[in-house]
Amino acid sequence: MPSTLFSTPKLGDKEKTTMATETATISVISADQLLNQWQGHRRLTRRTIEAFPEDKLFSFSIGGMRPFADLAFEFIGMAVPIVDGVSTGKWEKFPGEKPSTKAALLRLWDEQTAALDAKFPNIPAHRFAEVDVAFGQWKNTGQATIQYAIDNEIHHRGQGYVYLRALGIEPPHFWERD
Amino acid sequence: MPSTLFSTPKLGDKEKTTMATETATISVISADQLLNQWQGHRRLTRRTIEAFPEDKLFSFSIGGMRPFADLAFEFIGMAVPIVDGVSTGKWEKFPGEKPSTKAALLRLWDEQTAALDAKFPNIPAHRFAEVDVAFGQWKNTGQATIQYAIDNEIHHRGQGYVYLRALGIEPPHFWERD
Repeated sequence: MPSTLFSTPKLGDKEKTTMATETATISVISADQLLNQWQGHRRLTRRTIEAFPEDKLFSFSIGGMRPFADLAFEFIGMAVPIVDGVSTGKWEKFPGEKPSTKAALLRLWDEQTAALDAKFPNIPAHRFAEVDVAFGQWKNTGQATIQYAIDNEIHHRGQGYVYLRALGIEPPHFWERD
Repeated sequence: MPSTLFSTPKLGDKEKTTMATETATISVISADQLLNQWQGHRRLTRRTIEAFPEDKLFSFSIGGMRPFADLAFEFIGMAVPIVDGVSTGKWEKFPGEKPSTKAALLRLWDEQTAALDAKFPNIPAHRFAEVDVAFGQWKNTGQATIQYAIDNEIHHRGQGYVYLRALGIEPPHFWERD
């Protein structure tokens, strides 16, 4: 391994130990920051939905994968139901049906955005670290289950970017989250 | 908006206020958990690299986007240099060149995995919340800059999944991070 890989700042052994101990236990993300990051991603996903022509949103696919409307509805099916499950320990499927127009999908998206903002702050503090079985299937801490929903959205939105490029459409800027 | 969207558990007003206050300030992710999540994603990205046939890894593209080897090298260019920058305040480009074979790319990947594990715990605690200008361009807290690297990897790996499906290759399971 080239030595450049380990060219860390020069620290005394004592300093190193102190830092390592601190880093293992310090908080890097609070609950409100997690919600803000999620909503930032959700704003970007909303712009990705908007970027699709209506027919392609519901039909375009590569390699047998799902159209982007199906993926967006999967995100909706995970977001509020997961926050409800982490809050209450009750895991229930999203009760609504997949919208059949772009306008209806965006309307549902916005309703869920408001619901997330209203519900997330009511998650009891201890539930983030508590292990539960999400939807009776996925055993994890509340935090990890929420992070999974965010990561899944980023992952499939990246898939949507390829659909857009293949359609000759410029996707929204990945780094814009406002 | 349908009333089902706000079917939260019934709580008294006082209980609600207490929870909201707690949630705004509680820690949901510690530094070591952040590193573990990142390395879990990096293990999945490694399997994604492995899933590509050698020639397609360096050449296959959809819609004018970069081949997956370029994306993987972008992840390498962000990971350790960002940890170094957050640690020290010095932002330096990754010094190596893009490997030209799959074996060399995987070897470099594994070196960087070890470097991340060695360096991350030395990030001074206060640097996660401190605002800095990453690589002289991106102003953000250390935590947000690290999260951006993780999110960027998830995003572009999702793009790689489409490449694999278009090539008739089953991508690795998204939910497996071991």
